[in-house]
Amino acid sequence: MPAFRSETDSMGAIDVPADRYWGAQTQRSTINFPIGVSRFRWQRPVIRALGILKRAAAEANAELGELPPDIGRLIVQAADEVISGKLDEHFPLVVFQTGSGTQSNMNANEVISNRAIEIAGGELGSKKPVHSNDHVNRGQSSNDTFPTAMHIAVVEQIHTKLLPAVGALRDTLAAKAQAYQDIVKTGRTHLQDATPITLGQEISAWVAQIDFGLNAVKTAEPGLLELAIGGTAVGTGLNAHPQFGARAAAYIAALTGHPFVDAPNKFFALSAHDALVQTSAALRTLSGGLMKMANDVRWLASGPRCGIGELNIPENEPGSSIMPGKVNPTQCEAMTMVCAQVFGNDATVAFAGSQGNFQLNVYKPVMVHNVLESIELIADACLAFNDHCALGIEPNLPKIAENLDKNLMLVTALNRHIGYDKAAAIAKKAHKEGLTLKAAALALGYLTEDEYARWIVPIEMTHPNKD
Amino acid sequence: MPAFRSETDSMGAIDVPADRYWGAQTQRSTINFPIGVSRFRWQRPVIRALGILKRAAAEANAELGELPPDIGRLIVQAADEVISGKLDEHFPLVVFQTGSGTQSNMNANEVISNRAIEIAGGELGSKKPVHSNDHVNRGQSSNDTFPTAMHIAVVEQIHTKLLPAVGALRDTLAAKAQAYQDIVKTGRTHLQDATPITLGQEISAWVAQIDFGLNAVKTAEPGLLELAIGGTAVGTGLNAHPQFGARAAAYIAALTGHPFVDAPNKFFALSAHDALVQTSAALRTLSGGLMKMANDVRWLASGPRCGIGELNIPENEPGSSIMPGKVNPTQCEAMTMVCAQVFGNDATVAFAGSQGNFQLNVYKPVMVHNVLESIELIADACLAFNDHCALGIEPNLPKIAENLDKNLMLVTALNRHIGYDKAAAIAKKAHKEGLTLKAAALALGYLTEDEYARWIVPIEMTHPNKD
Amino acid sequence: MPAFRSETDSMGAIDVPADRYWGAQTQRSTINFPIGVSRFRWQRPVIRALGILKRAAAEANAELGELPPDIGRLIVQAADEVISGKLDEHFPLVVFQTGSGTQSNMNANEVISNRAIEIAGGELGSKKPVHSNDHVNRGQSSNDTFPTAMHIAVVEQIHTKLLPAVGALRDTLAAKAQAYQDIVKTGRTHLQDATPITLGQEISAWVAQIDFGLNAVKTAEPGLLELAIGGTAVGTGLNAHPQFGARAAAYIAALTGHPFVDAPNKFFALSAHDALVQTSAALRTLSGGLMKMANDVRWLASGPRCGIGELNIPENEPGSSIMPGKVNPTQCEAMTMVCAQVFGNDATVAFAGSQGNFQLNVYKPVMVHNVLESIELIADACLAFNDHCALGIEPNLPKIAENLDKNLMLVTALNRHIGYDKAAAIAKKAHKEGLTLKAAALALGYLTEDEYARWIVPIEMTHPNKD
Amino acid sequence: MPAFRSETDSMGAIDVPADRYWGAQTQRSTINFPIGVSRFRWQRPVIRALGILKRAAAEANAELGELPPDIGRLIVQAADEVISGKLDEHFPLVVFQTGSGTQSNMNANEVISNRAIEIAGGELGSKKPVHSNDHVNRGQSSNDTFPTAMHIAVVEQIHTKLLPAVGALRDTLAAKAQAYQDIVKTGRTHLQDATPITLGQEISAWVAQIDFGLNAVKTAEPGLLELAIGGTAVGTGLNAHPQFGARAAAYIAALTGHPFVDAPNKFFALSAHDALVQTSAALRTLSGGLMKMANDVRWLASGPRCGIGELNIPENEPGSSIMPGKVNPTQCEAMTMVCAQVFGNDATVAFAGSQGNFQLNVYKPVMVHNVLESIELIADACLAFNDHCALGIEPNLPKIAENLDKNLMLVTALNRHIGYDKAAAIAKKAHKEGLTLKAAALALGYLTEDEYARWIVPIEMTHPNKD
Repeated sequence: MPAFRSETDSMGAIDVPADRYWGAQTQRSTINFPIGVSRFRWQRPVIRALGILKRAAAEANAELGELPPDIGRLIVQAADEVISGKLDEHFPLVVFQTGSGTQSNMNANEVISNRAIEIAGGELGSKKPVHSNDHVNRGQSSNDTFPTAMHIAVVEQIHTKLLPAVGALRDTLAAKAQAYQDIVKTGRTHLQDATPITLGQEISAWVAQIDFGLNAVKTAEPGLLELAIGGTAVGTGLNAHPQFGARAAAYIAALTGHPFVDAPNKFFALSAHDALVQTSAALRTLSGGLMKMANDVRWLASGPRCGIGELNIPENEPGSSIMPGKVNPTQCEAMTMVCAQVFGNDATVAFAGSQGNFQLNVYKPVMVHNVLESIELIADACLAFNDHCALGIEPNLPKIAENLDKNLMLVTALNRHIGYDKAAAIAKKAHKEGLTLKAAALALGYLTEDEYARWIVPIEMTHPNKD
Repeated sequence: MPAFRSETDSMGAIDVPADRYWGAQTQRSTINFPIGVSRFRWQRPVIRALGILKRAAAEANAELGELPPDIGRLIVQAADEVISGKLDEHFPLVVFQTGSGTQSNMNANEVISNRAIEIAGGELGSKKPVHSNDHVNRGQSSNDTFPTAMHIAVVEQIHTKLLPAVGALRDTLAAKAQAYQDIVKTGRTHLQDATPITLGQEISAWVAQIDFGLNAVKTAEPGLLELAIGGTAVGTGLNAHPQFGARAAAYIAALTGHPFVDAPNKFFALSAHDALVQTSAALRTLSGGLMKMANDVRWLASGPRCGIGELNIPENEPGSSIMPGKVNPTQCEAMTMVCAQVFGNDATVAFAGSQGNFQLNVYKPVMVHNVLESIELIADACLAFNDHCALGIEPNLPKIAENLDKNLMLVTALNRHIGYDKAAAIAKKAHKEGLTLKAAALALGYLTEDEYARWIVPIEMTHPNKD
Repeated sequence: MPAFRSETDSMGAIDVPADRYWGAQTQRSTINFPIGVSRFRWQRPVIRALGILKRAAAEANAELGELPPDIGRLIVQAADEVISGKLDEHFPLVVFQTGSGTQSNMNANEVISNRAIEIAGGELGSKKPVHSNDHVNRGQSSNDTFPTAMHIAVVEQIHTKLLPAVGALRDTLAAKAQAYQDIVKTGRTHLQDATPITLGQEISAWVAQIDFGLNAVKTAEPGLLELAIGGTAVGTGLNAHPQFGARAAAYIAALTGHPFVDAPNKFFALSAHDALVQTSAALRTLSGGLMKMANDVRWLASGPRCGIGELNIPENEPGSSIMPGKVNPTQCEAMTMVCAQVFGNDATVAFAGSQGNFQLNVYKPVMVHNVLESIELIADACLAFNDHCALGIEPNLPKIAENLDKNLMLVTALNRHIGYDKAAAIAKKAHKEGLTLKAAALALGYLTEDEYARWIVPIEMTHPNKD
Repeated sequence: MPAFRSETDSMGAIDVPADRYWGAQTQRSTINFPIGVSRFRWQRPVIRALGILKRAAAEANAELGELPPDIGRLIVQAADEVISGKLDEHFPLVVFQTGSGTQSNMNANEVISNRAIEIAGGELGSKKPVHSNDHVNRGQSSNDTFPTAMHIAVVEQIHTKLLPAVGALRDTLAAKAQAYQDIVKTGRTHLQDATPITLGQEISAWVAQIDFGLNAVKTAEPGLLELAIGGTAVGTGLNAHPQFGARAAAYIAALTGHPFVDAPNKFFALSAHDALVQTSAALRTLSGGLMKMANDVRWLASGPRCGIGELNIPENEPGSSIMPGKVNPTQCEAMTMVCAQVFGNDATVAFAGSQGNFQLNVYKPVMVHNVLESIELIADACLAFNDHCALGIEPNLPKIAENLDKNLMLVTALNRHIGYDKAAAIAKKAHKEGLTLKAAALALGYLTEDEYARWIVPIEMTHPNKD
C-alpha cells in the first residue's frame, strides 16, 4: 500500500496518509493549524458527539426522504464506529482552527464518508457512493452541526462525569455532617473565635454550598438541550428539509437519553453560545464552593501542633523533600489549583462568548474546549479528594475540646440575660487579663456561679432552634 | 447646639456630629476607613434594604414577645424613615470597611435607635429607651443581617431597575424584528458574505439573546430569595427566637412584595454568597448578549460610505472635534463599555465569593456593591440605548439591496440542484473574474437562465421552513 | 439672569444652564448618557489633566504661530482655572459616553472657550473671540487629546497618591522586619508547621513583595510617558503643525514635572492603550502582594485563643453586633476587598484594551476610569492599613515561644547529621505518640541528649548563611 | 524481569513498574492524583528545567564539598539524560498534585538517583550509592527547587519559542508596512470613515503594538532571572551550604546561557511568584495586541463583496461545508481564540498568585503550567498566522481607491482654510443629498474648484509632518 492517497475538495487535490480515513479538508487543517498539537487535539467527548450528530442526521434525512435508504444505512454504520471510539485516531485536529469548527465537522464528514465507502466496497477518496458534503453533511452546515455537537458533548460529560463525581464527594461530606452532628466546637468568623457550632453544622455548610453549585449546573441545562441543528449556514435552515432540525434532535435525544430539541431561534443558536457561558459560570460557582470547602479543611487540619488542628486528614505521601515526617493537605491543594484553573477557563469562555458578529460566533472550539476541561478537572479532583481525603476526615477531639473550652465568645449567651454591654466587659476583662470567662464574669459580679453554669452551655448554643 | 455629642460603644466614648443620628461605631468607621470616600458610600438600594430589614426584625420580635410593643413601634417608625430615604445623609459609610458589613449594620442600628429615642422624647446617645444592640439588633448579628439586606437590595433593584430597562430595549428590538421581517439582506458568517436572511431574522437573534440573559437573571432569583436572617453570629441562631428568622422573612416579603423566606441552611447563608455569584454571572451573560447586539448595530451602521452601511442610526451629537460632520455610534460605545465594566465587576464578585473561611465570608460589601453597580449600569445603558439608538434604527434599503444583489453566496441554493462541488466552481469563477453569479453559472454551463431564475430567489432562501 | 442660554454646535442650537460654562456638546451628552450619573462623573485627576493638556496645547500653538498670542493667553488663563479645580462643577459628564472621550474633550474646549470669552468681556456661547474647536482644540482631535489626558492623569495619580501611600506602608513593614529580626518563630508551609524563621524574615517577604509590585508599576511608566498628542484624528497629525505634538508634550512635561514626550507611533497611540493595560496589570500584581500580606496578618493574628495568635493587631472598633468583646482584623478585610476590586477593574481594562478597531480604540473612558479607581483604592487602603493596623502590629511573644517549642519540624536540622530517613522516623514517632521531639529522638536512640542540644538550635536554623 | 520492583519512602514500601526509574513518591502521586491525566502531564520544558536544576545543584554541592565527587559526577550524568529528553517517559506526573510541586521534584530526584545507581552498577530502589533525598536533593527543598525550575522553563521557552515566533510575524508585518507606505486609503475611527492614512501607517500600528507587547515580556524577565534556589524549606536556606544558592544559580546560568542569579530575598521567592504573574500579564498584553491586529485583518478583508474588502488574504481551505466557494479568515479566528485562551490562563495565574500563605504559595504547578501554555499557544499561533496569512496579505487596490474617493472625511482638510463649522456643513450636505464632497462644497459656495483641488489632496493628508 502506498503511504499516501489523493483526496480532493473544492480547492483541489492533496495527499493524505493512506491508512487514515480523513480527507482533503482535514489534511489541510493539520498543515494550517499546528497550534498546541500535543495537548489540544479533540478528545473522546467531542468525537463521540460528532458521531452521534452525524448518525442522527442521517437517520432524519433518510426518514424525510432526503437520503437514499442505503446511503443512510452506510452512514449510520460508519457513524456508530465514530461513536464507539473505534476511529479516534482518524480525528487529528486541534481546538485552534477555524472558529466555526468547520474543519472538525468536515473531519467527521470525511471519515464517515470514507469508512462508509470502504464498507460499501468503494474506493477511499472517490466520494462514491457516499459523498462527505452531499450525503454525510446533507441539510447541514458546520455552523449548526458544530454547536450541536458542543451541546451533546457537554450534556453527556455533565451527566457521566461531573454529577457522579461531585455527588460522591457531596455524599461523603453529608455522611460526615450527620456523623459529627453532636461534636461541639468553636465557630469562627473573621478568622476569630466565635460562638460554638457543631462539626456537623460546619460540614453541612459545605454540603449546602456544593448542592447550590450542582443546582446551578443543572439550572443551565435547559439551554444546552436546545440544539442549533436545522439552522444550516445562517439560521434560516436553507437546504435542509423543514422538519430536519426537529427530527435530528429527536434522534439525538433517543441516542443519548437526554431530551434534546431543536432551538426555537436558530439565528441565536448560531451567533451566540450563552448556554455554554451560563454552564461555565455555574462550574465556576461550583468551584468557588469547592475552594471554600478545601480551604476550610486544610485550615482546620493545620498544624499538627502550631495551627488549628481540629481535623485529622489522611496522610497519603511524604510531604516534604527536606522536612522529614511532614504531612501536607495535598488533596486540598490539587482541588484549589483546579478551582483556579476553572476560574480562568470561565474567563476565556465568557470573553469568547461576547465576541460574536452577525450570524456567527467564531469562538466555538475554544468555548467548548474550556467547558469540557473544567468538567473533567472538577470531576477528577472531586473523586481524588473524596477517595484520598474526605473519606478519611476525622475530628481531633482533644484539640476541639481544648479550643472550645477557652473560647471567650461563649460570653454571647449572656446577652439575653445581662445585656450586650456587660457581656462585652466580661469578655474584654478575660482577654486582657488572661482569665477564664467564668473567672472574669464572677470578678465583675455580673452573675453568680450558678447562673454561669446554667447560662453558658455550649451544646445548647448550637441548637437554639430546638427549644 | 454644640457641634458634637458623645456616643459610646464597648470601646468607650467618642464625639459624633450633633446633627447626625449615627453613633459611636459609625463614627469610628469614618475614621478607620477613609477609602474611596467620594464614590463608594452606600447608596439608596442598600440603605433602603437595611431599613426594610430592621423594620421587619422589629415586627417579628414584637410579635414573638422579644421586644416590648412600644419599643417595637418606635423602631418601625424610625425604620420607615430609613426606608423612605429621609435619613440617607445619616449613612456615611463606604464599601471598604469590615467584610461582614458590621459597621453598616451598626450604622442602621444606631440611626434607628437615636431617631426612635428622639421620637420618644429621649436624649440622643442615651440608648434609652431604644438600645441599638439590645433592641434594634435584637436576635440579629451583622453576619445574618447584612447578607439579608444584600439580597433585599439586589432583588429590588432587579425588579425596579433592571427588568424594566432591559425589557424596554428588548421590546423595541422585538418590534423592529417584526417590522423588518420581509427585508431580505446579506447574511454574514466569519465576517464574510453568506446566504441571505431577513433583517427581522437578524434582529430576532438579538431579542432571543437578550431574552436568554434576562432568563438567566430570573433563574438566579430563587437563591436570592433565601435570607440569612435568623442565623445570627455563626448560623446557629443563638440569641434569636427560634421562629424569628421565618417571621422576619415573612415581614420582609410583605414589605417588598417578593417571596422571601429564611434560608434552610443558615451556615451556608453566612459563609458563602453564591446566590450573588450566580446573579453576577447572569448579569455577565446578559452583558455578553448586549455587547454582541451593540457590536452588530455599529458594524451594520458602519460607513457612512466605506463600511457596511445597511443600518441608519440616530445622529445624536457631533461625532468629532476635528472631523466636521462625522457621526459615531456612541450609544453602542457606551453600551459596550458598560459590558466591559460588568465583566470586571463579575470577576471581583466571583473572586470575593471564593474567599470565605469557616462560618463567614468577609467580602460581603464588595460583592453586593459590584452586583448593584452592574445592575444600575446595565439598566441605565439599556434605557439610553433604547431611547437614543434602538428606537431610531432604520434600514438603509438601497445599500441592503445593493449588497444582496452582488452576494456570491446566493450560490448555496444550487447545492440541492447541482451539488456542492459544481456550485463551488461557479462561485469561485465569479469571484476570480469579477462576474455576477448568473454570468459565471451560465458560462460554466451548469444551469440555464431559466433554472437560475427559479432556483436563486433570495426571499425563498430565508424562509425554507415555509415550503 | 435667565436660567438658560442658547449654545450651538454643528447639529444646531440647544439650551444650557446659564450659570455653567459648558456648551452644546456637553449639554447633549448629559441628555444622551444618563448612565451611572451618581457615581461615574469624572473627578479631579481627569479634569485637571484636561486642563493641563489644553494649556500646553495653547502654549505650543502660540509658540508655533498657530494661535494669535492674545487668544493663547486667554486659553492659558482659563485652563489654569481648570487645572486648579476652580471649575470642576462645569464638568458634568460621566465615564459611559462616547468611547473616544470626545464629549469630555469638548467639555474642556467649551468650558475654556466660554471662560476665556468671559475674561475677554465677550458673550458666553458667542464663540468669540475664543472658539472651542478652532482655537481651544486647535491642532487637536479627541482621539489624541483624550488619551493624552489619560496618561497625564494616571502618571500624576501614581506619583501623588499611589507611591507615597504604598511607600508609607512598605516603610512601616520594613521597620517592623528590622525590629523583629531576632524573634524566632515557627515557619509554615502548606499551612503546616515547618522549620523556624524569624518574624523579621517573615515580614521581609511582605516588604520584598510590595517592592516587587511597586517596581512593576514603575516599569510600566515609560509607556505612560508617551503621549498621543500630535496624532489628531487618525494618527497622521492632519491639521496640526508638524512640531505641535513634540512642543505640546514638552509643555506638559514642564507643567507636571514628568518627562512626557510625544509617542513615536501615533497610530498605535490612538488605536490601543497597552500602557494602561500594563499599568493595570502592575496594579493587579501589587494588589496580589497586598492581599497575601493582609491574609498573613489576619491569620497570624487569628484567635485570640483558638487560632494561631502569634501577632497582636490594634483593636479599632467593636467587632460584632452580637458577640461582645470580639475584635476583628477589619483593616485586612478592607484591604483584601480592595484587592478583589482591583482584580476586577483590571479584567475590565484588559478586556477593553483588546477591543480596538482600525485607527481607534473606543473604550478609552472605561479604561482610564478603572485604572484611576484602582490607584485611588490601593492608596487609600494602604494608608488606612498603615495607620490603623501595620503601625500597631506587635508580636505575641508567649504564643510565639509556645508554638516554636512544640514544632516538630525542628527535626529538619538533623538531616545533615543522621539523614532524612531517620529524622523522619523521629518526627513520626513524636507526632503519633504525642511526644516532644527530643523524647522521640532519644527513645529511638538516633542521637544523644548532648547531640540534640547542639544540633537543634532554632535561632541557628534561621541564619544558616551566617556560619 | 518481574513487572514491578519495590521502592520505599518515609511512608513505607510500594510497588513501581520495573521498567521505570521513578520511585515510591512518584508512584504514590500517580495513585493519589488521577486528575486530567490525558492532557496535564508535564511536558519537555519543565522536565528539562528539572534536569538542568539537578545537574547544577550537584555541581555546586560537589564544588562546595557537600557531595563526594563521584556521587556528583553520577548525578550530572543522569541529569544530562533528563535534560536531553531521553528520560521523558519516566515523568508521569500531572499539574494537579501537591501545590509545592514536591512530587515532581521527588520524581526528578528518584529518576536521577535510580539512573545514577544503574550507571554505577547498583540496584534500582536501593538508594545506593545515590540517595534521592540525601544526594540528589542535597541542600534543596521542593519549595526552592520547583520555583527555580519554573523560572528556568519559562525563560527558556520565552527565548526559544515565543520571541522567534512573534518576531517572525512582527518582521513580516513591518515589511508590509514598508511596502505599502504609499497606498493611501480611508482611515476609520468609531468604525466610521475618517481622514485618510496609508496602508503602511495602518500596519505600522500593529507592528508598534506587537513591539510593545514583546517589550512587556522582556521587561518581566529580570524577575524571572532571580531564582529561589538556596532558600530550601522556608527561605532560610537551612541545610544548604551558605554559598549553595549563588553557586547553583551560576551553574544554571552557564547551562542555559541566561544570566540567572539567586534571589536576594528567598522568603519572597518561595511565598509568591509575582515574576510569573507579571510575565503572564505581559503575555496577556501581547495577546491583546495580536487580537486587535487579527481583528483588523479580518475586517479589512471582510466581503468579498459586501464588506470592507480592502485587503486580500490567502485562501487556505474551503470555508464552508454548505456554502460553496466561501473563504474565511481562519488564521485570524485561530489567533483570536488563542488570545481568549491566554486571557483566561492569565486570570488563573493572577488568582493563584494571590493565594499564598506564610512561607509558601501552593499554586506553583498551576501557575507555571498556564504561563507555559500561553507561551506555546502564542508562539504556535504567530507562526501559523505568519506562514498562512500575514505573508500573503495584499491590498485590494481598486476597492481601496473606491473607498477613498467617496470618503466624506476628506473635508477635514478644509478646517484650516474655512473653519470647522463650514466644513461640517459641507460634509452634512454631501451625506444628506448623496453628493460628492466637491459638489457639496461648490454648491455651498465655500470654496472654488481650484481651491478644492489644492486643499483636498489625500496623500498630503497622510504626511502632514513632511511639509
